[in-house]
Amino acid sequence: MRQNVRAAAAAFGILGLAAAPTAQAKEGMWTFDNFPAARMQSELGWAPDQAWLDRVMAGTARLPGCSASNVSAQGLVLTNHHCVIACVNALSSNEHNFIEYGFGARNREEERQCPNMSVQVLQGISDVTERINTATAGAAVEGFARARDAEIARIEAECTQGSQRCEVVTLYQGGRYALHRFKRYDDVRLVFAPEHRMAAFGGDPDNFNFPRYCLDFSFLRLYENGRPAATPNHLTMSFRPLEEEEIVLIAGNPGRTSRLRTSAELSFERDINLPWQISSLAEIRGQLIAYAAEGPEQARIASSTLQSVENAYKALSGRRQALADAEGFGRVTAAEQDLQQRVRRNRAAQREIGNAWGEIAAAQSTYRGIFHHYQYLEARAGERSLLFGWARDIVRGAAERQRPDAERLQRFTEARLASVVQGLTASRPVSPDFEEIHLAFWLSKLREHLTVDDPVARRILGNESPEVLVERLSRSRLADPAYRRELWEGGADAVAASDDPMIVFVRTWDADARSVRERYVTQIEGPVARAHERIARARFRAFGLEQYPDATMSPRVSYGQVEGWTEPGGRIVPAFTYAGGLFERATGHAPFALSQRWIDARARLDTTTIFNVSTSNDVIGGNSGSPLLDREGRVVGAVFDGNIHSLGGEYFYDEDLNRSVTVAATAIRMALADVYGMSALLAELGAQ
Amino acid sequence: MRQNVRAAAAAFGILGLAAAPTAQAKEGMWTFDNFPAARMQSELGWAPDQAWLDRVMAGTARLPGCSASNVSAQGLVLTNHHCVIACVNALSSNEHNFIEYGFGARNREEERQCPNMSVQVLQGISDVTERINTATAGAAVEGFARARDAEIARIEAECTQGSQRCEVVTLYQGGRYALHRFKRYDDVRLVFAPEHRMAAFGGDPDNFNFPRYCLDFSFLRLYENGRPAATPNHLTMSFRPLEEEEIVLIAGNPGRTSRLRTSAELSFERDINLPWQISSLAEIRGQLIAYAAEGPEQARIASSTLQSVENAYKALSGRRQALADAEGFGRVTAAEQDLQQRVRRNRAAQREIGNAWGEIAAAQSTYRGIFHHYQYLEARAGERSLLFGWARDIVRGAAERQRPDAERLQRFTEARLASVVQGLTASRPVSPDFEEIHLAFWLSKLREHLTVDDPVARRILGNESPEVLVERLSRSRLADPAYRRELWEGGADAVAASDDPMIVFVRTWDADARSVRERYVTQIEGPVARAHERIARARFRAFGLEQYPDATMSPRVSYGQVEGWTEPGGRIVPAFTYAGGLFERATGHAPFALSQRWIDARARLDTTTIFNVSTSNDVIGGNSGSPLLDREGRVVGAVFDGNIHSLGGEYFYDEDLNRSVTVAATAIRMALADVYGMSALLAELGAQ
Repeated sequence: MRQNVRAAAAAFGILGLAAAPTAQAKEGMWTFDNFPAARMQSELGWAPDQAWLDRVMAGTARLPGCSASNVSAQGLVLTNHHCVIACVNALSSNEHNFIEYGFGARNREEERQCPNMSVQVLQGISDVTERINTATAGAAVEGFARARDAEIARIEAECTQGSQRCEVVTLYQGGRYALHRFKRYDDVRLVFAPEHRMAAFGGDPDNFNFPRYCLDFSFLRLYENGRPAATPNHLTMSFRPLEEEEIVLIAGNPGRTSRLRTSAELSFERDINLPWQISSLAEIRGQLIAYAAEGPEQARIASSTLQSVENAYKALSGRRQALADAEGFGRVTAAEQDLQQRVRRNRAAQREIGNAWGEIAAAQSTYRGIFHHYQYLEARAGERSLLFGWARDIVRGAAERQRPDAERLQRFTEARLASVVQGLTASRPVSPDFEEIHLAFWLSKLREHLTVDDPVARRILGNESPEVLVERLSRSRLADPAYRRELWEGGADAVAASDDPMIVFVRTWDADARSVRERYVTQIEGPVARAHERIARARFRAFGLEQYPDATMSPRVSYGQVEGWTEPGGRIVPAFTYAGGLFERATGHAPFALSQRWIDARARLDTTTIFNVSTSNDVIGGNSGSPLLDREGRVVGAVFDGNIHSLGGEYFYDEDLNRSVTVAATAIRMALADVYGMSALLAELGAQ
Repeated sequence: MRQNVRAAAAAFGILGLAAAPTAQAKEGMWTFDNFPAARMQSELGWAPDQAWLDRVMAGTARLPGCSASNVSAQGLVLTNHHCVIACVNALSSNEHNFIEYGFGARNREEERQCPNMSVQVLQGISDVTERINTATAGAAVEGFARARDAEIARIEAECTQGSQRCEVVTLYQGGRYALHRFKRYDDVRLVFAPEHRMAAFGGDPDNFNFPRYCLDFSFLRLYENGRPAATPNHLTMSFRPLEEEEIVLIAGNPGRTSRLRTSAELSFERDINLPWQISSLAEIRGQLIAYAAEGPEQARIASSTLQSVENAYKALSGRRQALADAEGFGRVTAAEQDLQQRVRRNRAAQREIGNAWGEIAAAQSTYRGIFHHYQYLEARAGERSLLFGWARDIVRGAAERQRPDAERLQRFTEARLASVVQGLTASRPVSPDFEEIHLAFWLSKLREHLTVDDPVARRILGNESPEVLVERLSRSRLADPAYRRELWEGGADAVAASDDPMIVFVRTWDADARSVRERYVTQIEGPVARAHERIARARFRAFGLEQYPDATMSPRVSYGQVEGWTEPGGRIVPAFTYAGGLFERATGHAPFALSQRWIDARARLDTTTIFNVSTSNDVIGGNSGSPLLDREGRVVGAVFDGNIHSLGGEYFYDEDLNRSVTVAATAIRMALADVYGMSALLAELGAQ
């Protein structure tokens, strides 16, 4: 597959090849078809060959927002606990609280289907840059994004069939487009999850910190036709202790980085978007903490959302800090200026790129003017309300399905419709309290940022306060999946006839939301994408293939070593923690409280067992659940976090400080064998 | 008194007098002894004389965090509702809910004393710069702040006696020190407060916005010896309608501006302090919103804190935005560079100022290293917990009172002790829920920012979670004022012997808190103050007296006109709103719900009555409650807010956009006469 990228890059003249000026050893989230084997070989004395990479690619998987590995021939999948917490929560009730007590299926019959979860395994990648470029060549800048998305819809539709799901992934900020073919499993069942308090031991205070003692793993199983899926291409776990400095690789789906974005875009992030997001997260965090304090049921209902809010809050705060740091931001501008200088030395390159950086800066300034409208009416409308999300999918889906595929909103194109339908029809518990919190929060922030006098805010709120409106909306019948299915299947007529308060509400101002979306797509997204495409070409001219694209929740591999780091103040942080440290850190009070099973098991555990591991691989959110792999391609742990310095990894990798954090296979085996007694599972993993 | 400043300035050679480069028409919060009459005369064609200023000075007053005017000979004081909301809240119960229904004393007997409130009326100002400079002349930079504070304690102690309270006010960032003599009234009673929903009509959504419809006024009365105080120097209210463009002045106590701070300090604000403060406010706001949603009593308990949190959140977000704006920050650096250039042209000035800017920048960098420790252990310890605040005053006060006056922490010097004792011994209702929210919030953030592994965090939290610790602390008996008095009077022995959990808790780690305070004072506060003193001298050389000092919660006067503004997008905002608009804006739902009295009164009101007014005076938080004055020095309204553009006023005044917002005397009269039927009060105001 490597040829595809090479072909794409060869199409551009070369400005004079050089390593990208900011590249550090071990840096990069590389695509499987452009792994820098030679560079790794020279840095670390060993590198995987393409067969190794192909094998690993086939044995890893993608979950919504996470990564995973397939670790048995019967569809067994290893990922993090925090990647399946929504499933554990949905399967829990006050009688069967799997968040509190964990879940372990003793046999296949006890494995329980996760509502609304799918797992995708990559089958192959092919380059479609040329097709997209041809389709967008004649488009005016406002029409660019639409022409691109129409061609993407066509490519995806041609390819998608049965359980094969196809997705065009944008790489190098539009410098390359790659068609990814996935096999999609919609029947995914929970096999094992430890107690939440053990998975998330240390909670928010320890999150992104190290030393660390989390048992953040879980097992799922893929099913096909009601039976465990046959997965002959699986990887194998190894339970030997890791060694200091040994070479490790991580394969997974890093979610998003912004390393190729321009300084104008990152200034916007630093000054507008991140401060707004962080404040929003802080406020809803406060509400959730107060809600969870009302009682144990409230605490259970809030737990997974609170955890994700706190995680995002800390991650985004770290990012903001990284950009506020003059030295950090200086790296961004230095790299940008370096490329600009290279371009200035080459007349053809200069002509081609034109005023790309200026166009992106101008688009940011336009974005400022509609930012809050775009967020509150469109991108973040409804916040975390399930009812709102379903209503919008029903209302929009009805309208979009009447259009030709290539003209639809991307979410509703034929190739992507299956996941919308799955989300709509899966049974999920709806907490009325929780709905009200999120809807009222969204509406009060909308009113705060758009102001009371904004015409759309007036149309949305009418003469009601957010609280009163929310109370009315929460009488919606959309909590019933049968009703949702009925409306979805009834299409536009059913939507028009519905008197469900949430459907009526969404219908009333959907045109306003679509209008601000249209402005965003034509005036911001399109111009920025088109300019980035030109910058990407200049970058290919300058650096050839010695560069990796920004993370885009698509399969990547990174390499590094088992190693700790030295804090700027001089404190040395070792690479390993051991089981004994868990008991030393435990205080008996949340989030440092052990489960009863662990308290009871203490005497029989080997306290020298490696528990969590720090490695120098370049990872980012979305890599959660990724297999940590040794040179033999065996799974030696499940990555679940980065250290505090890795938060700046959104913008740059620092080999001295960025670290990923993994729950070691040794800890997983100890837990399954000596605490939970999961012998059948251990046998399947080849650990007994 | 004008001579004092002139004398102080004359002590420096002049660099070549010029107007400060950023000065705009109407800009400035001027001291009463350095009012720019000539400049105002040339800008607006009229200016007050010194007699006018002296009369106004004597008729205005200072409340904690607010301003006020004295408007009758029997001690009647006009201020904002939001300045007395803590009093209204403290006097309220579920049976007598003055927040909900308002408060109106029909006669003197019904006037009710506000717990823990004092009002101060300025008697005179004298310059003490020379004394302070002499005292600090020999001090090393680490000892600077202590030498300065010791001399301040001496000056204040010499002056303070009986109801005369003396305070040395730092002006021009240490370029000048002025001794302010106040007459202090400790017996302050509530005379009238409208319903909270009318005072804060529009709530947080309308806060800092305009057009506006707030009845944000209240009346207090000063008492002496159990009788209404005789206040012959009072001002007089005028109830005539204001006119567009008429000249108005505002006298009050603007709280804080940062217009003379260096770009290094403001970068610290923008990148570290403000983001941290804004996130903290957002999170506690979320908790308070969720708490208030639990029921009407919780809503009442939370209301005043929630209002102040939301106000601070919005204000600080506006400030952050102003600093994040490249053009805004550019003004700061431009002014700084201008002064630096002037200094470079003068060898003597250059020698004197040395590396002042560099020293301040270095101190910011030191501050980064201890910022969270200083905030969580010292400056913000306990957050809004009353119990914690009392415990710390008792524990520290016991230790400090054993020391010579000049060596004490400033809060506990003889001249300032009265207000500590008043705070400790006044009866204030304590809500256990509310205490727990604030204490748990503080401790969880302390743990988050200091991390679990910090030795002091460990000493504070022990093996407890914040929630468990707080539960233990909330069993403190300090809610009982008699117990607080007993401990205070018992001094060090009583503190050492106490087993009250909050006293024990505070005692346990007070040395840690004092130690970080000491580092702050010696390594940050001292060096910064000393460097600013030198910058201030350079500024006097450059601009002479044509400059005003930063706001420091000391009496100031600003001038402007009744005028609206034009938004950058072109929308024109008129200067007045009218009573009719209130009814149009009302929706029946909070925060746009009218009280029943206003609904009932609607038919008999003159809807053309001027309600709120926008004026171009330069004001900032702390000016709340200030009299808006016409050319005759009559009170034509009570200032209660600034517009959204005034938030950047912390750093710069923009004559095109910054506006203050006032509740007009015409609205006050209409309310008292036609809604509340307060005829005796109207008679006292000369309105009937």
